[in-house]
Amino acid sequence: MNPHVIILEMKKLLGQLDTWLDKAVAYGEAKKFDPNVLAQSRLAPDMFAFVRQVQSTCDSAKFAAARTAGKDAPSHPDTEQTIDDLKKRVATVIAYLGTFSAKDFEGADERSISLPRWEGKSMSATNYLVEHAQPNFFFHLTTTYALLRHAGVDVGKRDFLGPMTWR
Amino acid sequence: MNPHVIILEMKKLLGQLDTWLDKAVAYGEAKKFDPNVLAQSRLAPDMFAFVRQVQSTCDSAKFAAARTAGKDAPSHPDTEQTIDDLKKRVATVIAYLGTFSAKDFEGADERSISLPRWEGKSMSATNYLVEHAQPNFFFHLTTTYALLRHAGVDVGKRDFLGPMTWR
Repeated sequence: MNPHVIILEMKKLLGQLDTWLDKAVAYGEAKKFDPNVLAQSRLAPDMFAFVRQVQSTCDSAKFAAARTAGKDAPSHPDTEQTIDDLKKRVATVIAYLGTFSAKDFEGADERSISLPRWEGKSMSATNYLVEHAQPNFFFHLTTTYALLRHAGVDVGKRDFLGPMTWR
Repeated sequence: MNPHVIILEMKKLLGQLDTWLDKAVAYGEAKKFDPNVLAQSRLAPDMFAFVRQVQSTCDSAKFAAARTAGKDAPSHPDTEQTIDDLKKRVATVIAYLGTFSAKDFEGADERSISLPRWEGKSMSATNYLVEHAQPNFFFHLTTTYALLRHAGVDVGKRDFLGPMTWR
């Protein structure tokens, strides 16, 4: 398999996240509260707030694509405060992931990746994608979903998974 | 990349989940409550309880390996009630995943998978793994983690990710 299928899946799931944000806004309107209060919600007091869960989901996907392909990732400062800000951030990353093709990921098993905080150690691009980028992406994506679900937003498993690529 | 790296990652993460269960038991002992009450905890009243989140994590990994390799998966009835029961279920699936090798997953891009509830539709084994098995696995794994974190169990991001495969 080519790692590009994993990047395409991240792109699809970011599109799903965007629909959850729409449902969060609709829920706020129906219950007459400002949906932006959700941006500071947390599952535990020492976990990241919702806004940072979404930012981290976006960054995990961005770095997954860039680093696995051996490219430099664009910088996205974490300045978002509202649901609308977060929707724009998500759209930016979806567009960025759309610039990659299968060819960009050829040779990922041989390519080495090293980050400054790894203190000289390195991983293959494939291992980075599967052991670091994907678990981080899904961690923050699922925590984002869990925060909305815990708050009563009407999202379900189909909203999480999105459409399948049938043959 | 060979899909086997994804199965090895699931195996590693199930091992991490086992350490969270140990921490849940230790937390119950320290706070003087029966840790098995956590088994019925939920993030929302219409979400699966903790015990079913762990069972679903196990089944997602089991089916990911079996179906992507074109094999029949063993049956694991969902009879667990205690943390100790869940640790045994996790150990069973870790052992099962250990029976696969990279050779089992060759040709996954060409292999077709169809489930009875898909009403005649099919997916490639690679797409099944990336679009169905992995998101389900991480959904239930992260929700398991979130439930423990929400309950105050001392787990952190390193407990989630586990050790990396350095070069």
